Amino acid sequence: MLGRLNHVALAVPDLAAASERYRTMLGATVSAPSALPEHGVTVAFVDLGNTKIELLEPLGDNSPIAAFLAKSPKGGMHHVCYEVSDIRAARDQILAAGGRVLGDGEPRIGAHGRPVLFVHPGDVFGTLTELEQA
Amino acid sequence: MLGRLNHVALAVPDLAAASERYRTMLGATVSAPSALPEHGVTVAFVDLGNTKIELLEPLGDNSPIAAFLAKSPKGGMHHVCYEVSDIRAARDQILAAGGRVLGDGEPRIGAHGRPVLFVHPGDVFGTLTELEQA
Repeated sequence: MLGRLNHVALAVPDLAAASERYRTMLGATVSAPSALPEHGVTVAFVDLGNTKIELLEPLGDNSPIAAFLAKSPKGGMHHVCYEVSDIRAARDQILAAGGRVLGDGEPRIGAHGRPVLFVHPGDVFGTLTELEQA
Repeated sequence: MLGRLNHVALAVPDLAAASERYRTMLGATVSAPSALPEHGVTVAFVDLGNTKIELLEPLGDNSPIAAFLAKSPKGGMHHVCYEVSDIRAARDQILAAGGRVLGDGEPRIGAHGRPVLFVHPGDVFGTLTELEQA
């Protein structure tokens, strides 16, 4: 069921500063920032060839990463995202194994325009885990 | 300078249980556990095709992930590892940009038998960042 690692999301308090740091200190290729108000984040992508890092900065009053940054003001590792071929089949397998998915269980359209859901971190040893239909 | 994402390391309190959960709930391909006493961890690899997850369980009295699990007993995201072609050149670029590397600044032989170093998480927005010479 688990396919490729689509991305690793890192929350940062200042996306411009983080993008500049990744470029100059780590020699990384970082995209221009992209505001996604419907997802409550501004994102920049670090291209790694085989996968990507998403640097996330909160956007708006109800950002899903605001609580994370309140707890970890310097930023940190927020979630991993794996690709699956069938998001509803993945959900059903998780539920059948006793796992929980966040929200009402219905996939939503994620930041890449594809159906996503999140597995409860308590069911995957503390790691917030996103699944995206590839 | 930054090359491919070599792995994402997730700390878990119980590697056998985590491996089983990844297999049954997420349908992942997980290797047999491998004890690395010189690195203070037992590791299992989740093969994702384009990269891998390393599930890490503490091993011995001086495990480098013991403090992490004391703070986050359920487990969580521990570090990311990027490949670089020249570990000393990478270190020099980081230092020149005002960044810090952990330890004495000399690369060590990591869990894969290749030279590695860690960038101070305070210099990369809270994410513990390993570089490995590919």
